[in-house]
Amino acid sequence: MASLPSCSAAELTPLLGFAANATAAADYICDRFTATSDKFTNTTYAIDNTYLLFSAYLVFAMQLGFAMLCAGSVRAKNTMNIMLTNVLDAAAGGLSYYIFGFAFAFGGPSNGFIGKHNFGLKSIPSDVYDYSFFLYQWAFSIAAAGITSGSIAERTQFVAYLIYSSFLTGFVYPIVSHWVWSSDGWASASRTSGSLLLGSGAIDFAGSGVVHMVGGIAGLWGALIEGPRIGRFDRSGRSVALRGHSASLVVLGSFLLWFGWYGFNPGSFLTISKSYNTSDIFYGQWSAVGRTAVTTTLAGCTAGLTTLFSKRLLVGHWNVTDVCNGLLGGLAAITSGCAVVEPWAAIVCGFVAAWVLIGFNKLAEKFNYDDPLEAAQLHGGCGAWGLLFTGLFAKKQYVHEVYAPGRPYGLFMGGGGKLFAAQIIQILVIVGWVSATMAPLFYLLKKLNLLRVSKEDEMAGMDLTRHGGFAYVYHDEDGSVHPPPGFMMGKVEPTSGSPSPLHNTTNVVV
Amino acid sequence: MASLPSCSAAELTPLLGFAANATAAADYICDRFTATSDKFTNTTYAIDNTYLLFSAYLVFAMQLGFAMLCAGSVRAKNTMNIMLTNVLDAAAGGLSYYIFGFAFAFGGPSNGFIGKHNFGLKSIPSDVYDYSFFLYQWAFSIAAAGITSGSIAERTQFVAYLIYSSFLTGFVYPIVSHWVWSSDGWASASRTSGSLLLGSGAIDFAGSGVVHMVGGIAGLWGALIEGPRIGRFDRSGRSVALRGHSASLVVLGSFLLWFGWYGFNPGSFLTISKSYNTSDIFYGQWSAVGRTAVTTTLAGCTAGLTTLFSKRLLVGHWNVTDVCNGLLGGLAAITSGCAVVEPWAAIVCGFVAAWVLIGFNKLAEKFNYDDPLEAAQLHGGCGAWGLLFTGLFAKKQYVHEVYAPGRPYGLFMGGGGKLFAAQIIQILVIVGWVSATMAPLFYLLKKLNLLRVSKEDEMAGMDLTRHGGFAYVYHDEDGSVHPPPGFMMGKVEPTSGSPSPLHNTTNVVV
Amino acid sequence: MASLPSCSAAELTPLLGFAANATAAADYICDRFTATSDKFTNTTYAIDNTYLLFSAYLVFAMQLGFAMLCAGSVRAKNTMNIMLTNVLDAAAGGLSYYIFGFAFAFGGPSNGFIGKHNFGLKSIPSDVYDYSFFLYQWAFSIAAAGITSGSIAERTQFVAYLIYSSFLTGFVYPIVSHWVWSSDGWASASRTSGSLLLGSGAIDFAGSGVVHMVGGIAGLWGALIEGPRIGRFDRSGRSVALRGHSASLVVLGSFLLWFGWYGFNPGSFLTISKSYNTSDIFYGQWSAVGRTAVTTTLAGCTAGLTTLFSKRLLVGHWNVTDVCNGLLGGLAAITSGCAVVEPWAAIVCGFVAAWVLIGFNKLAEKFNYDDPLEAAQLHGGCGAWGLLFTGLFAKKQYVHEVYAPGRPYGLFMGGGGKLFAAQIIQILVIVGWVSATMAPLFYLLKKLNLLRVSKEDEMAGMDLTRHGGFAYVYHDEDGSVHPPPGFMMGKVEPTSGSPSPLHNTTNVVV
Repeated sequence: MASLPSCSAAELTPLLGFAANATAAADYICDRFTATSDKFTNTTYAIDNTYLLFSAYLVFAMQLGFAMLCAGSVRAKNTMNIMLTNVLDAAAGGLSYYIFGFAFAFGGPSNGFIGKHNFGLKSIPSDVYDYSFFLYQWAFSIAAAGITSGSIAERTQFVAYLIYSSFLTGFVYPIVSHWVWSSDGWASASRTSGSLLLGSGAIDFAGSGVVHMVGGIAGLWGALIEGPRIGRFDRSGRSVALRGHSASLVVLGSFLLWFGWYGFNPGSFLTISKSYNTSDIFYGQWSAVGRTAVTTTLAGCTAGLTTLFSKRLLVGHWNVTDVCNGLLGGLAAITSGCAVVEPWAAIVCGFVAAWVLIGFNKLAEKFNYDDPLEAAQLHGGCGAWGLLFTGLFAKKQYVHEVYAPGRPYGLFMGGGGKLFAAQIIQILVIVGWVSATMAPLFYLLKKLNLLRVSKEDEMAGMDLTRHGGFAYVYHDEDGSVHPPPGFMMGKVEPTSGSPSPLHNTTNVVV
Repeated sequence: MASLPSCSAAELTPLLGFAANATAAADYICDRFTATSDKFTNTTYAIDNTYLLFSAYLVFAMQLGFAMLCAGSVRAKNTMNIMLTNVLDAAAGGLSYYIFGFAFAFGGPSNGFIGKHNFGLKSIPSDVYDYSFFLYQWAFSIAAAGITSGSIAERTQFVAYLIYSSFLTGFVYPIVSHWVWSSDGWASASRTSGSLLLGSGAIDFAGSGVVHMVGGIAGLWGALIEGPRIGRFDRSGRSVALRGHSASLVVLGSFLLWFGWYGFNPGSFLTISKSYNTSDIFYGQWSAVGRTAVTTTLAGCTAGLTTLFSKRLLVGHWNVTDVCNGLLGGLAAITSGCAVVEPWAAIVCGFVAAWVLIGFNKLAEKFNYDDPLEAAQLHGGCGAWGLLFTGLFAKKQYVHEVYAPGRPYGLFMGGGGKLFAAQIIQILVIVGWVSATMAPLFYLLKKLNLLRVSKEDEMAGMDLTRHGGFAYVYHDEDGSVHPPPGFMMGKVEPTSGSPSPLHNTTNVVV
Repeated sequence: MASLPSCSAAELTPLLGFAANATAAADYICDRFTATSDKFTNTTYAIDNTYLLFSAYLVFAMQLGFAMLCAGSVRAKNTMNIMLTNVLDAAAGGLSYYIFGFAFAFGGPSNGFIGKHNFGLKSIPSDVYDYSFFLYQWAFSIAAAGITSGSIAERTQFVAYLIYSSFLTGFVYPIVSHWVWSSDGWASASRTSGSLLLGSGAIDFAGSGVVHMVGGIAGLWGALIEGPRIGRFDRSGRSVALRGHSASLVVLGSFLLWFGWYGFNPGSFLTISKSYNTSDIFYGQWSAVGRTAVTTTLAGCTAGLTTLFSKRLLVGHWNVTDVCNGLLGGLAAITSGCAVVEPWAAIVCGFVAAWVLIGFNKLAEKFNYDDPLEAAQLHGGCGAWGLLFTGLFAKKQYVHEVYAPGRPYGLFMGGGGKLFAAQIIQILVIVGWVSATMAPLFYLLKKLNLLRVSKEDEMAGMDLTRHGGFAYVYHDEDGSVHPPPGFMMGKVEPTSGSPSPLHNTTNVVV
């Protein structure tokens, strides 16, 4: 950091108190104030970039969370397939977002529909965007495709995945993020280049719509066009649970997503050192960032708890994977309004989100819709609820601080219907845009026989037929020498000497 | 951040050197210094909140660590049960800590026993607490209940869990944290509202006592009142190891806990940008935070290594899960004194902690005490040692910097016995308080037949009977079509054509 | 943070405009500027330490990543063995790096070969090093030994591991890091105590050579001297894949490594708040840190994608574990030049890295070299490519900003051959030094019968024979009561009533 010039009384003394030296004195003093000001600018960049980069790393960790959640939620025979799609999202997304995705989304100045600068990070860093902003947005862009992969898991050809994923990450998603988040976007509450939608703009602070609904609606079309997995509904149309193969991976993935959400939501402020210029000097964007972490937490907690007890009532047992899904539904819902609502409102958000998810799951079952990760229901359904919730509960003070003074705020908070209407428009437009782009693509892939794997491959599992083998090998596979069962489990297996063929088998398999 | 007014020589020149303009000149200059000062205040908030929020996220990651450690340490049939308790700790803790837990703990000004303000985050943010502090303390509060769930794993009714967990997180723990950490607490070394205990206050910097002992002692009573798991001790009272089902999950969980501990211990400074006003301008709270990370690391490393070699001598093999537990024991022990001891002392702390854990485990075996995660031994035993250690090894300089000048410090460091006595009082009071509240609760639950599951349920496992199924499904469960064994393992199974029924079975199951 | 003295116009006014008070006025004003300057120094320390500490925590998370990657890549029977080596790296490395490793590496002023101060953290913190720097370097030091453990997995005696690991972490690695990274090192591009190698010094920003090649070359010698695992090559010398036991753990570990790499590479700047004093006030070290995160990301992504498609062409399926390894190869390669190349160059780096790994793997197969984690190929091969790449593509502006003005830069960027030559020298010297120290050690261990386990132990697996049992117990081990198959899978197993003995067995085992 450029150092402040030292201030020497010996130098300054002759300058003061003599009119003849007034100019020199003023220069002397002002040089130091100017340097002070510059140094604050540097310091602010250092703090804000630290905050944004570590937030980006947390958002990236969500990709690991997705991978583990997806892996645990599918059957063992498709584990490698689903994990590969998650790795691929990150890898392919990195290249495409670098080359054109970021430009489509944020390459201003541009029109309201699509960005057109900064291809290949040209002209970055600038006083508008630094590399950290690109990294942060890349980590967001790869989340949407991950959501979709959950909906169409366990039956989709890998080549179809390659195609839709590139299209979604490289085009469909960046367009929506341009609309809602860029300073040129037609629906953006941060718009500076034209009039605001309904004088308000849609508030989707961290992307209940931009990320979650986009991924969820894309998944909905994919899963609808593919149809359910074999065996998911019996001949009379009754639902048969095809249980995921590892609850441990589901919990691991869900917790990692929760962990990463602290980068996703509080990180979406992009800067933390902004003062709100209130009389309370302790209050500034750092407080708003913290509040956002709190609303995020409370919505997730409430949705998880609500799911726990309602499932206990509805299904009769305490189900950890349901609780995880409920929790994630609450997090997806609060993502839109997290920065502009009170903590108590986040509890309302989470409570309703749990029921939204339960409702959409009932609906899905009724219509024989099969989504192995409940991704359309969760990210699409709870994401849409999140947008509505923001239109209802956004608080005046917070909207004015986070966006701009004078803006419309939540209907239930006395802010009128403009924000709520803008939120509804955002929901409709996202549903429309994603449907208009992704449904034809999935349909085309189906017509070209590129969408679904063969019945045989589906039954055998894709890992075996497409990915080189089964994901797990828990026994000694070399086959040449096998420890006798009794030896293998030794002291922990009191009945190892049991003559029962059943037990012998058990021992070997472990 | 409010910008500094620009300093213009053209404006300042006429003001200087003329007595008539002296007031204007002074105003001009002072305005800028005042703005500089305000901007430093803002900058400091931004830095400190960034540091505290990311520390809170790390502490939250410990909940994931607990979940994985617990899951791996129990038998497969109870995996979903134990993971659900961990998810629930976080979720239920979020709501209860928001509504009243935080208020009980930190809602000052209050008496020395319990806080009484800030229910539902009322009046937050203030110049005392911001949201980040609440989030950080919430992440702490959910740790204690997680520790206890380990002690009573594999045999406790879920409803009992719901009851004791709410009581512990919502009442028992916040009270202790009020005593030791709030500025009103009777035992707090940070007390500002009255005289210090023995002129010192107890030093439990990050909670060897407040978190670890509370969770461990609660677990001790739970496990004592429930009695050991079926099969844990044979008829002659000899110990039979009931091995956890996955060493991979144990290592994953232990490393995640270690990772999160860097939020727990160094994060407990709450701020990082405080200067210590020494002549060494490079030295300040940032150094103390780094030193705390180093002492934490060294204590964990030493305890892990000590356990490795002592178990090799005592048991005869190199055991990774024992090493993990030893390591965690070292971390639990250093948590009290991490900020006020030298790195070499942390090595002493870890070395003794490993033996404390070994000793308490021997004792537990002798008394047929069954604690599936050794939680009472580890968090209770090593936590108590950590408090004593701080009373012995706290260094004068560090105590004076971190707490206040003139305070008593470690007995072995020449600081007299006052701090050591205060530490002993803290141990006794925590044991007393937790015993007086939790033992009757567990006893009551037992009398109401709400504590322990039936013998049949325990044998079958709780996942199956209470949580909707087994945590793992590694084979193809739809049953309708099964790939022939030879196909399934294909090229990696040279003996796949073996006619032995044993091998055929093995293949299918993998 | 020391507060700025308040500026009072009432106090300042009498001082200004009167020659007699000029000295007092100057003192008054200068006091405040001096305090401002000091406060900036404090603030800078606070920011930089926050940045460095959280980076260190991320690097530490890589140890967890290694543990999971290694665990998943070996057969189930050696899981606990390999995980224990990873835990041990961290634990033993903590002590040895504290006592002498850090002193050997960074204990200046010293000669160009080895450091000689700061044993046991003596004289730390100073104006050169704070605790955070030690912690960061410790987290690096434990990575090298982890790499090596992958090469010699599944057949090495634990005592051999203890010996080589201490020697590598405590001596071999610190020496290399002294050469290349300390201000005294003979090959260091940051050298201040003597002339630069070829007027340039080798640029190994975050350690493609210092960490990855050191670990990889050590592993190469270990694996060569031990020879391949039993069954790895058939009698005719053809390669037989010994598949790792869990693809989920491989993906988990790879993603964690990627996550931690954001501490490893961008964190290696050590400070973030440095201004580059350009006319672009938005541009400083914070931008370079962000750019480094971007180059790291792009290299990894490109290498992963390249591996995906080339393996599809070469082997015929989409392989997730190969993609993970390719990705890690790209990350290992970019680690040297990440701070001084353009994002587009990182894509070149990753593309070539993927082919380097494929090539070295072919070579390994040809020479019947068995490295269970491809560690020598990946970290040694891609690490060496990374050093060459830096000599070719380092950009003038970035080299001058990150190191010093006037320095040689990349050959392809018009910077002449000096840097490239220095890079080649670094490669040769690392290969030479590690070979000269580690090969004799492994050879000696072999002669003393301390290196390889017996054939019987290798077949049975080391977990069973050395570590107290098998890592996984998925069935109910108490054996006394067994739920009937039909009960166990209940509603999710439509064919549970099947009379086929095959199915019954399957059910029980799950």
